[in-house]
Amino acid sequence: MPFKVLVYSRFPKAMMVRIGERFELMHAAGKPPAEVFTAEELSGVQAMITAGGTPLPAAAMDMLPSLRAIICYGTGYDGVDLKAAASRGIAVGHSPAANAAAVADMAMTLMLAVTRRLLPADDYVRSGSWSSAKPSPLMRPQPGNPGRRVGVYGLGAIGRKIAARAAAFDMDVAYYSRSRHDVPWRYVPSLEALVEWCSVLMIAVRAGADTHHAIDGDMLRKLGPDGYLVNISRGSVIDQQALIAALADKTIAGAGLDVYEKEPHAPDALTAFPNVVLTPHIGGHTLESHVAMQDCVMANLDAFFAGKPLPHVVM
Amino acid sequence: MPFKVLVYSRFPKAMMVRIGERFELMHAAGKPPAEVFTAEELSGVQAMITAGGTPLPAAAMDMLPSLRAIICYGTGYDGVDLKAAASRGIAVGHSPAANAAAVADMAMTLMLAVTRRLLPADDYVRSGSWSSAKPSPLMRPQPGNPGRRVGVYGLGAIGRKIAARAAAFDMDVAYYSRSRHDVPWRYVPSLEALVEWCSVLMIAVRAGADTHHAIDGDMLRKLGPDGYLVNISRGSVIDQQALIAALADKTIAGAGLDVYEKEPHAPDALTAFPNVVLTPHIGGHTLESHVAMQDCVMANLDAFFAGKPLPHVVM
Repeated sequence: MPFKVLVYSRFPKAMMVRIGERFELMHAAGKPPAEVFTAEELSGVQAMITAGGTPLPAAAMDMLPSLRAIICYGTGYDGVDLKAAASRGIAVGHSPAANAAAVADMAMTLMLAVTRRLLPADDYVRSGSWSSAKPSPLMRPQPGNPGRRVGVYGLGAIGRKIAARAAAFDMDVAYYSRSRHDVPWRYVPSLEALVEWCSVLMIAVRAGADTHHAIDGDMLRKLGPDGYLVNISRGSVIDQQALIAALADKTIAGAGLDVYEKEPHAPDALTAFPNVVLTPHIGGHTLESHVAMQDCVMANLDAFFAGKPLPHVVM
Repeated sequence: MPFKVLVYSRFPKAMMVRIGERFELMHAAGKPPAEVFTAEELSGVQAMITAGGTPLPAAAMDMLPSLRAIICYGTGYDGVDLKAAASRGIAVGHSPAANAAAVADMAMTLMLAVTRRLLPADDYVRSGSWSSAKPSPLMRPQPGNPGRRVGVYGLGAIGRKIAARAAAFDMDVAYYSRSRHDVPWRYVPSLEALVEWCSVLMIAVRAGADTHHAIDGDMLRKLGPDGYLVNISRGSVIDQQALIAALADKTIAGAGLDVYEKEPHAPDALTAFPNVVLTPHIGGHTLESHVAMQDCVMANLDAFFAGKPLPHVVM
């Protein structure tokens, strides 16, 4: 008989097909599990799959007295109360680096699109304005990317892949993270100094209490009127209201965002700007990334039910 | 007294300011020079500036009996009848590589935007469809770029910069050009074989009679239903009608185009596709590129009027 696994977040079914072949999945479909399953059903749950960004507080763990493994689908685990899990002897696993290339690709896509004004350019062609030689500020040359300075905030698997890609674009690359790494890019010892130095700030840091609103109005002023902000990490790292204000008064030049403070809601004030490029948190959303993330989830579950340590463990 | 230089194409004035400080510019503003200047005025013209794509046939040269230097602003010179120039003892110069980084950046921008479905993604967020959880094929995972194969057709300065950028994206890179080069990318000895092999075809070849419609219906069938086409070179390299047919019947997956057969006209049939990204020939249109191109134009003109060989010469 296959082991039972609670699916805590709402995942598209296609993402769970492979996992469902090996485990008996109990789909809560994003609802509180107690609404979907009886207390008896929940009392036997030893392992669960969740999306790292979904809030998973102590109270939710208390509904699952046998729970011993929280397996995050994806690299993030910011929704999980790690202290509560630790105090209950619950292991937390995730899928590190599985989607790093896809997310780094999206960071570069957003950077290039916003700096080269891709959306207005496409609209200029599609609308017929180019054919009719309608004057457009688009046709005035703008600064290109070679010579720009890319600052990478956070040097995990995604940050490294962003740095490697940006370096191939004849751009200077530097990074700030808690510690210096043995990498070919310049280390800047503070976030302030990185933001002062760079003209494109790439947010690749892990979300958490220590990075909440790390990018605020002050930081955006340091980024400056020629500066661009790209976020493929989590919306919580940026003070979104401060970002909207900075875009409105041209404190910064533009932004490319795949993540937002309250997903799936991108505020109207943000969607009205022409100098932003907005994607619906699809950075890591490629077929290869999902297969790699599923591989991590299944390896974690297999190990857990075999009584072994999680191979892809947060703590 | 400054030397007189005929400006044959229509250029925005801002692009000619630096050159105008050193030479006396005679602006034909895109009209036949005989409509703007008297035969006597034209008889003294020894040098002209043109855009490489502007047709400059033998008949136009015959209106300028003293002409000895045709200086193309930009890397291309496909509009210039080189045989006619040679037979009249007219040197032809251009601005090689001056805009290569900017054009290669645009090639990557187009590739990333079309493969990661950036335009529908931005629209999904802006329209509020994401907030209202409206189902969308966009939210189904698609293949990402790592693992894709980039085929670069033409390995001049732009092709090399495209190859270097693509290699940083965990993508396999190969190229076809008339001859093999000492570069770290795989050489494929025919265009057919390159197109069969690759999943993203980057057109970076010089325009000319030998490359006219090199990408036709047969080639697009070889590129196949998972294949993407990116063109930042010249529209003439692709049979645009065949491309439209291939997009309509899903012979290929999508296209990113900065250039078209008849600029500034992108046909309605092309602008109606959701799986294309279209830019108005702005690949090389950055401030740095223009400064570098102007440097080449001025160095060529200085040398010409000093009786020296052109430093940036086509022939």
